[in-house]
Amino acid sequence: MTDALGALEVLDRAQCLRLLEGAHFGRVALVEQGRPLVFPVNYALDGDAVVFRTGPGTKLSVAARGSAMAFEVDEADPIYHRGWSVLVQGAAELVTDPTDLARLRTLPLLPWASAARPDRISTWVRIRPTSITGRRLISA
Amino acid sequence: MTDALGALEVLDRAQCLRLLEGAHFGRVALVEQGRPLVFPVNYALDGDAVVFRTGPGTKLSVAARGSAMAFEVDEADPIYHRGWSVLVQGAAELVTDPTDLARLRTLPLLPWASAARPDRISTWVRIRPTSITGRRLISA
Repeated sequence: MTDALGALEVLDRAQCLRLLEGAHFGRVALVEQGRPLVFPVNYALDGDAVVFRTGPGTKLSVAARGSAMAFEVDEADPIYHRGWSVLVQGAAELVTDPTDLARLRTLPLLPWASAARPDRISTWVRIRPTSITGRRLISA
Repeated sequence: MTDALGALEVLDRAQCLRLLEGAHFGRVALVEQGRPLVFPVNYALDGDAVVFRTGPGTKLSVAARGSAMAFEVDEADPIYHRGWSVLVQGAAELVTDPTDLARLRTLPLLPWASAARPDRISTWVRIRPTSITGRRLISA
């Protein structure tokens, strides 16, 4: 399906999930005091949920409250003006179930800023999607 | 300056502006009905303001209201676990001043989804920064 612009192809949920599975680095967006914030994260896909690890801070606070969180991943080719972008919208939550945690620990995921202090980023956050949408930019 | 994690270097404003100048593709985050949204955009830097072009839609509505908008650009090297990220926080606005528009039109900027319908994306949006922050991830 191509939208009104003619140059953007709307991706279906299955296409979006394949793109999400194939990437490992994206951005989390959240709302703090009414303002949007964006943070880069390494992530993994657990079913259709986006999971990542974080330490004390804004992302953790938002997840502990179960607030809305979005996740975006994209790829852009500036030379050929092609690319795609996938947006996951949902609510964030802390992962505390031991069975879930055991499964998540088997995923190939190294937090963006982990190396020096792995003990600091031991909390898993999950974004349960209410919406997964994507667009592919077709070179004209 | 290195933060408590030890693996993240805090970038100063001048370093952030240089990184912003050197890239052309980033993501705009905004709040709609209390929820965060993220959109990929091609952008340019006009002084210390991030500018991009858009058509009718959420980004345009947010800018017309002068609401908070954030902009993020990053680069990640998954193999060597290095990278950086810059976050611009501010208020969005429509650019309407003819002198400003004449200057912006000289900037090297092709909207992400422009090729087919350049008439649709003729509105310039500016994010006037209240904060420009950045981090560089140092390989451990």
